[in-house]
Amino acid sequence: MDVHEFRKLGYQVIDWIADYMDKGYEGPVTPNCQPGDLLKQIPTSPPQEAESGSQVLADFQEMILPLTSHWNDPRYMGYFPCNHSGAGILGELLSAGLNVNAMSWATSPAATELEMVMMRWLGELLGLNWPGTIQDTASTGTLCAMLAAREQVAAINADGYYGKKPLVAYASDQAHSSAIKAARIAGIGDAFLRAVPSNEQQAMNVTALKAMIEQDEQLGNVPFFVMATVGTTSTTAIDPVAEIADICVAKGIYLHVDAALAGTAAILPEMRWLMDGVAQADSFLFNPHKWMFTNFDCSAYFCKDPMQLKRALAIQPEYLKTEHDASVENFRDWSIQLGRRFRALKLWFVMRTMGVKGLQDRIRLHLEMAKWFAQQVADHPQLSLWSQPKLNTVCVYLDGDGQTESLMKRLNETGSVFLTHTVVNSRYLMRVSFGQTHQTWTHVHQLWKLIQDQLAAD
Amino acid sequence: MDVHEFRKLGYQVIDWIADYMDKGYEGPVTPNCQPGDLLKQIPTSPPQEAESGSQVLADFQEMILPLTSHWNDPRYMGYFPCNHSGAGILGELLSAGLNVNAMSWATSPAATELEMVMMRWLGELLGLNWPGTIQDTASTGTLCAMLAAREQVAAINADGYYGKKPLVAYASDQAHSSAIKAARIAGIGDAFLRAVPSNEQQAMNVTALKAMIEQDEQLGNVPFFVMATVGTTSTTAIDPVAEIADICVAKGIYLHVDAALAGTAAILPEMRWLMDGVAQADSFLFNPHKWMFTNFDCSAYFCKDPMQLKRALAIQPEYLKTEHDASVENFRDWSIQLGRRFRALKLWFVMRTMGVKGLQDRIRLHLEMAKWFAQQVADHPQLSLWSQPKLNTVCVYLDGDGQTESLMKRLNETGSVFLTHTVVNSRYLMRVSFGQTHQTWTHVHQLWKLIQDQLAAD
Repeated sequence: MDVHEFRKLGYQVIDWIADYMDKGYEGPVTPNCQPGDLLKQIPTSPPQEAESGSQVLADFQEMILPLTSHWNDPRYMGYFPCNHSGAGILGELLSAGLNVNAMSWATSPAATELEMVMMRWLGELLGLNWPGTIQDTASTGTLCAMLAAREQVAAINADGYYGKKPLVAYASDQAHSSAIKAARIAGIGDAFLRAVPSNEQQAMNVTALKAMIEQDEQLGNVPFFVMATVGTTSTTAIDPVAEIADICVAKGIYLHVDAALAGTAAILPEMRWLMDGVAQADSFLFNPHKWMFTNFDCSAYFCKDPMQLKRALAIQPEYLKTEHDASVENFRDWSIQLGRRFRALKLWFVMRTMGVKGLQDRIRLHLEMAKWFAQQVADHPQLSLWSQPKLNTVCVYLDGDGQTESLMKRLNETGSVFLTHTVVNSRYLMRVSFGQTHQTWTHVHQLWKLIQDQLAAD
Repeated sequence: MDVHEFRKLGYQVIDWIADYMDKGYEGPVTPNCQPGDLLKQIPTSPPQEAESGSQVLADFQEMILPLTSHWNDPRYMGYFPCNHSGAGILGELLSAGLNVNAMSWATSPAATELEMVMMRWLGELLGLNWPGTIQDTASTGTLCAMLAAREQVAAINADGYYGKKPLVAYASDQAHSSAIKAARIAGIGDAFLRAVPSNEQQAMNVTALKAMIEQDEQLGNVPFFVMATVGTTSTTAIDPVAEIADICVAKGIYLHVDAALAGTAAILPEMRWLMDGVAQADSFLFNPHKWMFTNFDCSAYFCKDPMQLKRALAIQPEYLKTEHDASVENFRDWSIQLGRRFRALKLWFVMRTMGVKGLQDRIRLHLEMAKWFAQQVADHPQLSLWSQPKLNTVCVYLDGDGQTESLMKRLNETGSVFLTHTVVNSRYLMRVSFGQTHQTWTHVHQLWKLIQDQLAAD
């Protein structure tokens, strides 16, 4: 592709994205398709001769779009928001243009330093005065935190686990599955990851946590890591971080706070209580790529003492040594990966072009949408509200076996909305997750009408 | 940023990238800057009110560009290629527009299936008929392979390491540092990662490997993982994969082949020997984001038996269950991370718009550049060639303490080239890494003239 073709197609792609953002996707928000529907359209071998970029772009529109789940269409209310924005897209585009590897300060001074400042900006929005780095996902962040914690209590990096007392990690039974995955990867093992029971609000039972820690101590095990969740994936439940922190501080146990979704809400003064107790923790994570209008991937990882993380992850082979290593941050030493994209650019574009007030206004709107919708559900004769939403997610159910699942399925089949489910205490719940960048009241009202129509049709 | 502003700035960014690709960066290829040079230009707090996108774009050009290492300028010959291309950038831009989370088939059928086909295409180019997935980096790939191997020999995921025989991993003393990092993260520990000596070509000494494995067996340890490297980071040395594979197969040890850089060269028929023995291994990785004109991040990870990987990494919480889970690939189960970007798009754009022949022609050109340059060095009275380059990287030195480092420093200070170093057997080597997307003979000749001029000025 020569520069002339790049320029021409580049304009076309910008135009397409502009229309996509402005009007949403013209077809169903999620595809009604079967496994293999794309496989059978794409040749099994690459072309020998070059094809035109226009042809690939045409195929993108014809083959890819109809088989895509449109996460950034305002009708998408499944899982969690995964927000792009015009500013975020331009940041990504510039990052792709430069395509630097931000593994070390020396390999890209601007990328490293902008990342430092963006983490400072985010910290200020949250009232958290800790340094940080941008990880790709919360899963990676959880693993980083667990490794930092592990290295605090035992020299596993040097010696491995053999002959040592078992290290034990704790997270609630509502914690994200990445806690299990991290414990496996880090070699802790399911046997030493305790699922702390949660209470009727799906928040961690702190009394149970304390008892479990003490039981492990009596067994001669070494409690080393607790993960508290602010806004669980399933129902956005909120663990009592301050109480958990009290236990961790008293026991000298590392505390990681996973606020992947909910952290964004804490930029509102009236929601700052979400951060209660976090200052007593060791690390804190939230994903601007979820609810803060910043393209995926962008996971903001803060740590009270970066040396904890660097002790776990820093490696210095000869070919990566540079003149300034002693006086700069090399973010490869804060990460699982060596290679790193220039992710700070998109955050810079988003925060500056929206401004703090713009970010707050948009998040406040989403919270109001969730409240309004919850009220309609509560007032409806057939629907039940699982709990009053504190955040962006409303969990809803119908009485009767299979009724909720059936309703959700029929709603999704319209192609006019996409919702996902969870199961809590054996109850199937339909989750409605607000917070998409382009969502307006119109979309909320359309959803509510759609639900009423479906129920009326029963 | 409204759609109108997005469109206007989008065009401007496309224009800027087009010029950047066409002409290279106007200033020095790497900045002559000090730590803090960007920090002092960016306000410590985010703006309260929205700023215009034009202002941010202007600041990008004024503040970010002069402090960036221009990895995609053809004068950049440090480390390894980290290639963008017009097609790769458009793929990234479309991916940013959709911004899907490709964690599961159901969350983005097109992203999952295109990834499957792109891995098939890449496999065909390499003569490797294995399924695969796109990881972010080779570091992550090494970790995935080690975890797959670990779970083959011991139920660490379930039980942890306690009471088990030590598991031992092997890689040459020239292997990438990610082997050490993976062994630490996975809890193997430095104590059980053996650095197998390399020979005078920096290739793994297979006799030593065999002896080390047998010694571990005698100690009652469990050899479980060998990493062979095709194209080391330092000098692009090539381990004898076929011989290593013979040992691994005989002993039932998992073999991972790291060809992060060199794998791209194996798409040339005359370089296919790089793949010798790989079919006997368990997993193989190369990075199209290095030398194959595909934007970072794009690391192609192939595995003979995906169940090995999935046994190590699959987790199925309730909120991620979908209707088709039994009949589709959910690539989250092949990855450290849960969330995944739509990385296959850029590969699709690159492979189709260049065609197999176009890819091969470009790689062949880079190999010729390395050969030509090596010949000039060999013929030069002062310079010495470390070894005949088999790939894109030429290692060069001058006799006399500090002479090579001094030459490299002076070359880099001109801003007309960027080179990095390594140290092998206590000898400081200047590495010249060819393979940038926009590199032509002009750049190679300019480099050679620059070196001659510097030497003449001594």
